[in-house]
Amino acid sequence: MTIVEFFELSAGKWVSQRTSHHLTFQQLESGKSELQIETLPPNNPDVVNLCQRSSLEPSLAVCGVKVVWDGTMEWDKTKRTGSMVLVLMPDPETPNTGKLLRSQGGAETAGIVGRYAIGNDDALTLITENGEVCIEERVWFASPNLRFRTSILKQPNGFSMASFCSEIRMGVTKPAPYPEQSSTATT
Amino acid sequence: MTIVEFFELSAGKWVSQRTSHHLTFQQLESGKSELQIETLPPNNPDVVNLCQRSSLEPSLAVCGVKVVWDGTMEWDKTKRTGSMVLVLMPDPETPNTGKLLRSQGGAETAGIVGRYAIGNDDALTLITENGEVCIEERVWFASPNLRFRTSILKQPNGFSMASFCSEIRMGVTKPAPYPEQSSTATT
Repeated sequence: MTIVEFFELSAGKWVSQRTSHHLTFQQLESGKSELQIETLPPNNPDVVNLCQRSSLEPSLAVCGVKVVWDGTMEWDKTKRTGSMVLVLMPDPETPNTGKLLRSQGGAETAGIVGRYAIGNDDALTLITENGEVCIEERVWFASPNLRFRTSILKQPNGFSMASFCSEIRMGVTKPAPYPEQSSTATT
Repeated sequence: MTIVEFFELSAGKWVSQRTSHHLTFQQLESGKSELQIETLPPNNPDVVNLCQRSSLEPSLAVCGVKVVWDGTMEWDKTKRTGSMVLVLMPDPETPNTGKLLRSQGGAETAGIVGRYAIGNDDALTLITENGEVCIEERVWFASPNLRFRTSILKQPNGFSMASFCSEIRMGVTKPAPYPEQSSTATT
């Protein structure tokens, strides 16, 4: 799968169940969100603008992604809503890896530059560093209507949090049909 | 990492936090276990016996593993204790993949034969099928004292459950030191 195909398959509305493991305190927290994911062409104004204010050349982008979320965490019952834009810039020689640019804050702020990689197993790994916090995420499809995501958060004094999300496409009552035997018998 | 190195690194006592996502009902369940993992040489009587009663040649095994667990699930507060033996039999041509043999039930029962694979990212994938239930697990180390595990359970009518475990070596108060920048900057 290419990085563009991965996000085309991700487009749509999803219900995301998240559980976070706070590693230092060994406590758990859960939450639920609705996600709306939309792919953007490389010449989309939001994509071009994010590249420019991050001092990256917009013509290197193959794909942009807009993610809008609306959710609640269990602890404080407060709503968590927001949106972000991602831009993918493949490495010229090895397009299954590349730069990942992520918006943060207002429309004037430079984005966070990280790395992406699509593995042979079609799982997407995203690594972003923001100050002293490093987040490594892995996102993969079990079926076209079921995605999983792990996020591991590292700080200078150690790993602090690990999260797991199961994401089901909205309107799908059964998460997914059973895949062909042949696709599960080999790894 | 070889399959033997993976389990040698796993040996010891771990505290495992588990959260299970019931996909059909979109409900969550959590639990906590203590795990004791011990590697066994290929000529260990438990390894040889499990191979023989599963009609597999014991000399093909490179490693056995004994896992003992003692835990509680949140819903029913009942203790879940048990143990199992695993046997690893690499494919002759590609030893990073092979057969996984897992004990079940009493000492007279044949084991369940599945598949394992160690990826380029040193993550271990285990696939076992038991009747109509297929479980795909992925286990990986964030550091020598911190393991993560995802388990996806498929039944004929669809995916039914996904679980995430964070496993911290017992006696370790901080999950792990921050890894070298060089190991997080590339995927």
